[in-house]
Amino acid sequence: MRTIWPVGDGTRVGVIDQTRLPHELVFGGLVTLEDAATAIRTMQVRGAPLIGVTAAYGVALAMAEDASDQSLEHAIAYLSATRPTAVNLRWALAEMTRILRPLEPENRFSAAVAHAGEIAEADVASSRAIGDHGAPLIAAAWRRKGGDKPVEVLTHCNAGWLAAVDWGTALAPIYRAYDDGVPIHVWVDETRPRNQGAALTAWELGQHGVAHTVIVDNAGGHLMRSGMVDLCIVGSDRTTAGGDVANKIGTYLKALAAHDNDIPFYAALPSSTIDWEIVDGAAIPIERRDGREVTHVEGWTESGERVAVRITPKASPVENYAFDVTPARLITALITERGVCAASREGLLALFPERR
Amino acid sequence: MRTIWPVGDGTRVGVIDQTRLPHELVFGGLVTLEDAATAIRTMQVRGAPLIGVTAAYGVALAMAEDASDQSLEHAIAYLSATRPTAVNLRWALAEMTRILRPLEPENRFSAAVAHAGEIAEADVASSRAIGDHGAPLIAAAWRRKGGDKPVEVLTHCNAGWLAAVDWGTALAPIYRAYDDGVPIHVWVDETRPRNQGAALTAWELGQHGVAHTVIVDNAGGHLMRSGMVDLCIVGSDRTTAGGDVANKIGTYLKALAAHDNDIPFYAALPSSTIDWEIVDGAAIPIERRDGREVTHVEGWTESGERVAVRITPKASPVENYAFDVTPARLITALITERGVCAASREGLLALFPERR
Repeated sequence: MRTIWPVGDGTRVGVIDQTRLPHELVFGGLVTLEDAATAIRTMQVRGAPLIGVTAAYGVALAMAEDASDQSLEHAIAYLSATRPTAVNLRWALAEMTRILRPLEPENRFSAAVAHAGEIAEADVASSRAIGDHGAPLIAAAWRRKGGDKPVEVLTHCNAGWLAAVDWGTALAPIYRAYDDGVPIHVWVDETRPRNQGAALTAWELGQHGVAHTVIVDNAGGHLMRSGMVDLCIVGSDRTTAGGDVANKIGTYLKALAAHDNDIPFYAALPSSTIDWEIVDGAAIPIERRDGREVTHVEGWTESGERVAVRITPKASPVENYAFDVTPARLITALITERGVCAASREGLLALFPERR
Repeated sequence: MRTIWPVGDGTRVGVIDQTRLPHELVFGGLVTLEDAATAIRTMQVRGAPLIGVTAAYGVALAMAEDASDQSLEHAIAYLSATRPTAVNLRWALAEMTRILRPLEPENRFSAAVAHAGEIAEADVASSRAIGDHGAPLIAAAWRRKGGDKPVEVLTHCNAGWLAAVDWGTALAPIYRAYDDGVPIHVWVDETRPRNQGAALTAWELGQHGVAHTVIVDNAGGHLMRSGMVDLCIVGSDRTTAGGDVANKIGTYLKALAAHDNDIPFYAALPSSTIDWEIVDGAAIPIERRDGREVTHVEGWTESGERVAVRITPKASPVENYAFDVTPARLITALITERGVCAASREGLLALFPERR
């Protein structure tokens, strides 16, 4: 299964509605530009790689309706404004612009479907390569601890196949190591406020058969201090040219705990999440989302009904930053589709010399 | 209002049922030893100082029924087993034993009620003194930032009057500074899995009129990196003779972030939470609680119904450690009823020379 797929000639795009997992596997259909923008904004699709691919298909849907220059420009601007932090969105939209702008309007829809498909395939290949490069790090940690007990990995949020098209970023090395026979157990941060760990990562790992345990976001520090974590792997929504990583809010706290306990902390990312124009992570815009994500928790009652319950006093304000920045100094290495490198300008340029 | 009070001759003890806040202020009545133990175990009453006082009243309730030596011993052992981490529980029970054991059974009940009341009054006095000693630290931080903008304080869990008998520990300096006219805004960690921040601290601060904003536990690191926090104050469930602090799970992560950003990090505690027999926090037993606190979230529907919703896949295991240990090196100072001291053996002994 993939997270996104064109249906027929591409005038309809299928997705998994990720707001309904883990209790219901519900599919959605995107038919218009507005559908694609709404799916990204409401996080029916989420994860840096997947929102890039969804935006690409969103441009195709816009071209199906109106392939004029004006429509193309509108679609790019409209999709670009859906979410501010992940840079893949803008990268995918720039790619679509590059391909479509020189074409005659009558050729744009089919070219858009084809190129969105290429971006999706490239993402699958990137994810698979991240798995290939990251799995040896997990196997090495397992051997370091003697090879008799499972290697203990902690991850935050969901950077699995649900966040990409297939395989994922942070979870790709885990799946690959597991498939290679490395005994592995994953500590899954629930990842408030949207609980992508509890809802998506736990579900994904369970489907694949990987042993895992869900913990609250507060617990990781205690586990690390108690010797219960051998390495951490997270994804990235935007990586600076200097190796700073913007990722789901709370990532920085886990990186601090890993550093304080000499535990390797890796960020896994396709190069489409690298923002070569920024060195310092402080320049990354941090999305502020609806306070309802903090005041209310959505879940399922015993009778299987999906319900949102309020957990804060009605009179209390809330604030909801969606990402934080982990400085490169706290990151042991970056795992990319081209290999593993230091979280630094030199490290990244060694793998991507064309950016020198 | 206080969190616990004897009714009539003390054969009944009133409490606030803290599992029902912030949406309902419900009172409970404890009549038997079993009632007191259940209230502590299910966290209808919680917070290190308050569970100590509740245990003291629990002994009185046991003495009302059967004041024999055997009954006294049973009550002490039974209450002592309710929760393992907070040391106040054992301290209060040792106090009750010291007072009651030498007495004739017929004198034990009234002496128990009287002494439980003394422990409660001593806690109120301690909390007030913690407020007196801590408020100048907040005022100083406010002046350091220029005195024109509110001082920004971050707190984790609930160490307010609901956690004690009155005033609280971490919140006592906040209330005192606010009452003294220092403009103050508090970032309230929601504190998963039981959401004592979102439910109790937010409600308390709102009742007192203190400006505050609820955030997810993941957010504090970003706020600190962004210059939005001037100091942190937390409580303590057990403080070692070396200054290590066991407190609600997740405290350690905030202490790391404060340290990484040169932000003062204080723990406020009455001396009843100091375990003089332990120096290294690694020796503190960490309570593991029911996994249902992680798998389910309790809240209120729009129609005012109290509902628990499941947020994790049914097939995914969970783990639920209730506390972590923050090493003394990350703590700027301890705020006690005798004053402020370094989080170290020497610092504590300077305030409590009788422990030398």
